[in-house]
Amino acid sequence: MSELTAIFADFYGAKSLVAPLNESIQYSIKAGGKRIRPILLLETLQGFGIDILEEHLKVAATVELIHTSSLIHDDLPAMDNDDFRRGKPTNHKIFGEAQAILAGDALLLDPYLLLANVALAPSIVVSLVKELALASGSYGMVAGQVLDMAGENQALTFAQLKQIHALKTGKMLTFPFVAAGIIAEQSDEVISQLRHLGETVGQAFQIRDDILDVTATFAEIGKTPGKDEVADKSTYVKLLGLAGAKAELAENLDSAENILQKISEKATFTSENVLKQIERLRID
Amino acid sequence: MSELTAIFADFYGAKSLVAPLNESIQYSIKAGGKRIRPILLLETLQGFGIDILEEHLKVAATVELIHTSSLIHDDLPAMDNDDFRRGKPTNHKIFGEAQAILAGDALLLDPYLLLANVALAPSIVVSLVKELALASGSYGMVAGQVLDMAGENQALTFAQLKQIHALKTGKMLTFPFVAAGIIAEQSDEVISQLRHLGETVGQAFQIRDDILDVTATFAEIGKTPGKDEVADKSTYVKLLGLAGAKAELAENLDSAENILQKISEKATFTSENVLKQIERLRID
Repeated sequence: MSELTAIFADFYGAKSLVAPLNESIQYSIKAGGKRIRPILLLETLQGFGIDILEEHLKVAATVELIHTSSLIHDDLPAMDNDDFRRGKPTNHKIFGEAQAILAGDALLLDPYLLLANVALAPSIVVSLVKELALASGSYGMVAGQVLDMAGENQALTFAQLKQIHALKTGKMLTFPFVAAGIIAEQSDEVISQLRHLGETVGQAFQIRDDILDVTATFAEIGKTPGKDEVADKSTYVKLLGLAGAKAELAENLDSAENILQKISEKATFTSENVLKQIERLRID
Repeated sequence: MSELTAIFADFYGAKSLVAPLNESIQYSIKAGGKRIRPILLLETLQGFGIDILEEHLKVAATVELIHTSSLIHDDLPAMDNDDFRRGKPTNHKIFGEAQAILAGDALLLDPYLLLANVALAPSIVVSLVKELALASGSYGMVAGQVLDMAGENQALTFAQLKQIHALKTGKMLTFPFVAAGIIAEQSDEVISQLRHLGETVGQAFQIRDDILDVTATFAEIGKTPGKDEVADKSTYVKLLGLAGAKAELAENLDSAENILQKISEKATFTSENVLKQIERLRID
């Protein structure tokens, strides 16, 4: 995603910005990651027959910035206390806790400046602002993180676990699909299906994360594996067993593909590239 | 500001919100404070002859929520490590550090949901989103906080001190005036004067804070006084002496009143109530 990298470099390369803040932000942005949220947004937009312009890249960038903030804050000593992320020392390990808190704060706020400056119809921008705030704040990611913390060292039910991840991971994965639908000016019905698709992919994403925490190496996931076990965290693997979690993942991805099929029936939509992204989440 | 309290209670009283997050957020919102930013916004709007509706209260609420977030995060052990705020134990002292970080995060994001839902023209909402993000993120408050931290234990010049506070305090005090101008659909010239007014009031506000840290009691300011001295922080009092700081405050407030006069000459604007708020910042 070199186009996305250019958007980040452009925004955080502004000379008028404060250097130490910028440096710590750029460190975490450049640490990379799969950029799955922006990729899903752009692939979905293209599926609706829209050519990708700089405006769309900016919208795609916003969800990645907020996601990056959540990683910086989750890694803090007061939270998950992680030393490595994406194979590199975590933000606070390099820049200190205070700077990491502030870098995370800026990464929650700056996306709204990016959104407010995109050359799309104001009514579309307002809808995007609303969706991003719903996905990230007290109705989304942050609320999920609070429930996740509250659930530590507790035996959660499958329903409780699903609720936590629907908020913590799911909402931020609905944004790419719903935002694409808003930009492509799709009907409420299609947008509702896109939201359902995002929720389903979100669940799959979390189940996959829980499986990889058990089966993958540091090199494969760029962070210390086995942390869930050590922290005695409720995970899909713990609740369903490894085989059960794998079956649950497969079921979620099948559902996602079914929803994608339904969207193709309701709208002028080429699902091929989004399907490829979903297929990549499969674990044999 | 009971109308503002009703907006907060309405937003954070929603049953669908996650209880422990809500509880910690409401604790800090209810701790009160002077609500100077929303008050300035509403008084300025009324000055432009606009009757205050619920939509305007929601816009006024957004700047107070982001301000509240900054207080929670600034008080954290990794930052200023304060035990008291507004006369009550700080958020992390009651709810723990992790919850305080997350409450602060939600308070940065939720305002954008409030803004996206106000019944004002979409182009006005987009401008408000832009101004709020400019005031708070990498171009405003958070950048100022980074510079403030970097300047600790250093002898700053008057110019450096001004720059820090222009970002840290100033930008969030320009929002109320500029937002009122945007809602009242004022000319670019008037909005530019409103921005200058906010910057000037912002400087006054910080000088006043530095003076009160030296002269006030715990009961008067609701937090431990004398902390700047202990932290060996560069302040206006340290740089200019107490009398010098008081003179600088008076000069800033005089400037603010001059700008207010100019706005009254350019626009249909009754400055009386805003003037009263500015007068309240004077220290004899």
